[in-house]
Amino acid sequence: MNSKKCFRECSNHGEATLNMGPGTYSIPLKLFQQNRNRLVERLKARNVQNGSVVLLEGGDDVPFYDTDTTYLFRQESYFMWAFGITEPGCFGAIEVDTGIAHIFIPKFPQEYEVWMGKILKKEEWSKKYVIQNVHYIDDMLDVLCTLNPSTILTLKGINTDSKFCAKEASFEGIKKFSVNNTILFNEIADLRVFKTDLEIEVLKYVIEISSAAHRHVMRTVTVGKTEYQCESVFLHYCYEVGGCRHVSYTCICGTGHNASILHYGHAGAPNASIIKEGEMCLFDMGANYFGYASDITCSYPVNGKFTNDQKMIYNAVLNANLAVLKSAKPGVSWTDLHIIANISLLEDLRKGGLIKGDIQEMLKAGVAAIFQPHGLGHFLGLDVHDVGGYLPGNPPRPSHIPGVDKLRTARILEERMVLTIEPGCYFIDHLMDKAVTDAHLSKYFDAAIFNRFRGFGGVRIEDDVLVTKDGAVNLTRVPRTVEEIENWMAGKDDDKYQECR
Amino acid sequence: MNSKKCFRECSNHGEATLNMGPGTYSIPLKLFQQNRNRLVERLKARNVQNGSVVLLEGGDDVPFYDTDTTYLFRQESYFMWAFGITEPGCFGAIEVDTGIAHIFIPKFPQEYEVWMGKILKKEEWSKKYVIQNVHYIDDMLDVLCTLNPSTILTLKGINTDSKFCAKEASFEGIKKFSVNNTILFNEIADLRVFKTDLEIEVLKYVIEISSAAHRHVMRTVTVGKTEYQCESVFLHYCYEVGGCRHVSYTCICGTGHNASILHYGHAGAPNASIIKEGEMCLFDMGANYFGYASDITCSYPVNGKFTNDQKMIYNAVLNANLAVLKSAKPGVSWTDLHIIANISLLEDLRKGGLIKGDIQEMLKAGVAAIFQPHGLGHFLGLDVHDVGGYLPGNPPRPSHIPGVDKLRTARILEERMVLTIEPGCYFIDHLMDKAVTDAHLSKYFDAAIFNRFRGFGGVRIEDDVLVTKDGAVNLTRVPRTVEEIENWMAGKDDDKYQECR
Repeated sequence: MNSKKCFRECSNHGEATLNMGPGTYSIPLKLFQQNRNRLVERLKARNVQNGSVVLLEGGDDVPFYDTDTTYLFRQESYFMWAFGITEPGCFGAIEVDTGIAHIFIPKFPQEYEVWMGKILKKEEWSKKYVIQNVHYIDDMLDVLCTLNPSTILTLKGINTDSKFCAKEASFEGIKKFSVNNTILFNEIADLRVFKTDLEIEVLKYVIEISSAAHRHVMRTVTVGKTEYQCESVFLHYCYEVGGCRHVSYTCICGTGHNASILHYGHAGAPNASIIKEGEMCLFDMGANYFGYASDITCSYPVNGKFTNDQKMIYNAVLNANLAVLKSAKPGVSWTDLHIIANISLLEDLRKGGLIKGDIQEMLKAGVAAIFQPHGLGHFLGLDVHDVGGYLPGNPPRPSHIPGVDKLRTARILEERMVLTIEPGCYFIDHLMDKAVTDAHLSKYFDAAIFNRFRGFGGVRIEDDVLVTKDGAVNLTRVPRTVEEIENWMAGKDDDKYQECR
Repeated sequence: MNSKKCFRECSNHGEATLNMGPGTYSIPLKLFQQNRNRLVERLKARNVQNGSVVLLEGGDDVPFYDTDTTYLFRQESYFMWAFGITEPGCFGAIEVDTGIAHIFIPKFPQEYEVWMGKILKKEEWSKKYVIQNVHYIDDMLDVLCTLNPSTILTLKGINTDSKFCAKEASFEGIKKFSVNNTILFNEIADLRVFKTDLEIEVLKYVIEISSAAHRHVMRTVTVGKTEYQCESVFLHYCYEVGGCRHVSYTCICGTGHNASILHYGHAGAPNASIIKEGEMCLFDMGANYFGYASDITCSYPVNGKFTNDQKMIYNAVLNANLAVLKSAKPGVSWTDLHIIANISLLEDLRKGGLIKGDIQEMLKAGVAAIFQPHGLGHFLGLDVHDVGGYLPGNPPRPSHIPGVDKLRTARILEERMVLTIEPGCYFIDHLMDKAVTDAHLSKYFDAAIFNRFRGFGGVRIEDDVLVTKDGAVNLTRVPRTVEEIENWMAGKDDDKYQECR
């Protein structure tokens, strides 16, 4: 774990960047400048009123209950997308007519220096974030009065995964202005769906770090360890080698039966089981770099050697994954890809003898959703479940077949979308019970063979994929076939993953 | 990092415990039963009305902005102290007359099982937490009506470090009851100041894990690494070896000048400097185990060999630390110990030539607070800055000498208190400027020698200490003298820290 050489470094010639030191990727601040420019162009194309000003409020420290400690700060994603600022307590504004940006920063008392370090001057903020106009928040009302906007555009809208509302910018005196909160949300959310070249480079970096960390975990996992020890190895690799201080979500490290719990790893089920001989591991973990997320799942036998049953289920999921990757390209509907994965899975499971009957019939009856009760995948970007899934003008949440209502988007694929492809096959007790007892389902199951898999857990194969002009590129670099996994876990194939992309 | 053998395991004979698997400490659930009993006894001694019922509300998941991800859940400390429950979204009640406890848990739809794992039945909660009466939150009003309390005692009070208010329990229908929120806070906060034998064992464990992790970091730190790589090594050790999924606060890994920033490591100064030859490291990091906190600072030269200047400053701080440890015992005022540390530091710095003049005069003028602009330490328990610092009936926040107003408590020491002793000596630019320019201060400084230390950073030596019947025991086990540090960093003295306490 000593070499950081393999990871890409940005060839920045003195330009301002965000980075975590030698060997880590340098994100040029112009990435955020580009996003602001894209937003301004989009708003102009939507004919917003001349003289409009966008106003976004950044994230703030979150205290740990009533104590004086806080959760380690991470920036709110819409604000990060537009300004790239890593500190809490800021605002940002963009003049739509000109694209000129302003940031508003807190003014700290000098005592702050003792506790928090040197207080950057406005000029230093300006240089750090390549934004000419830096003001104190205390002066925000005055500055905005001087700008004299026809309208202030603020962010208001519902996240379709959480159903929570974005935090709309607000400050003492905003009532003096004409505020419109109906335009901005859909426009930024839609822009965030399409990644720029600069954003794709950051995503490639964080996906590469996560891939390498997964490969490292595969080589260190052993019977007798607790699941969280594998989580710890992953976290350490991402941070020590890749400078990723955060992961994009709580690590899911399920082994054996636990692998059938889709969001295992939370405080009530904290990756604390001992890994037993013969079990499958399902490790869903993704690093985060300056907000940009990765999200990768690897499934493999702890002992590095698949049994026949493990191979059968694994290959059924891998075939579904590959079928989707092969079909994914601009113009194809995400819902259709979900169904392609379902069909591929059902065909293989029928070959394996677990189920019987007509594939289309089974699909409609909900047999696929017994095995995979989640959607095919989701957008990936500054949020791990990235925004823009169900914006106006795009297909609404589908419901024509059991399971598709779980999809986080039903959009038609377009170039520059980044998504996860993550089919899975799980043996979940109460769904298995339902399958063999439900009058409409039981006829499709061969109970004897199906029940053999009770306690098996599950398999998920999750890749992070970029939609290109005429297809899709898998950015994930981990051993995927049975042979690749068995070789890698046996200590072979080092050369296969050495080169930098 | 392969041996987990050295760490204490609880010899529980089938009793219910909280633990993280083999090699980690098993916390008996009776720890929390004892706390409830202590609370009931205390409330009776305060003559609360017959038929009173304590009602506490546990912590809840904190969403990451408007997304569907959350911060990894950690229980609220008052609720943890009383019930030991690690899941979000619960309430707990205690009948004061009898000590009988009730917990109220969320009722999840069956779909929850797919995402979060097996839904525990009420009987399973009862067994897990050794609490006979388990109810669904939906039934809370009915259950409380049946209990027919004369008064419901809820928690309301101000945290004297953060100035935030504790979250008072509330539910639909609470207005039907007589509620008193003026009694509970001060009583629980005061009880939390005094640790039971069972709590002391948990604290010893988490302090031991943190000590071992610090020792490990000391052996791996090298010039050219970034500071956060040391943080990552620490986090990994605590989690992989000790099962500590959380740290008690954001790691402070300052090297060189950064060591003079007391809360370095936050998002605006994220431990991202490269460690340079000849620098001092100041690493303030503490693991957390089921809520119980440790808080340890080690300071040492990155290359393992002190220069004369480093030795002088280091020994000045160590002498202050030892002077306090020697004087700490029941009956002694924490404020007086702070002053003992200040005086010891001033004496040594005067010997070193940085300052000149009468010690008492310098103390009153604020010379010590130039070097150490923080308090001597704080209570330690379920919160890293533990509660109970300024409860009614105890000495108020002092202000008679510059610096003492920063103290997080001014209490008289008593048996079973656990505190940090953390004197420090820092070279903070703007305080150094003040020292040599302020008319009342400058005469005490030998500017030539003093200014030699610009950029030095700082030294803090922080131990976690238990007040005993007739003294104080240092629970921290890290190399502390110059010789011990140099030996340890040279790879010697392995046997010194092997045995289990």
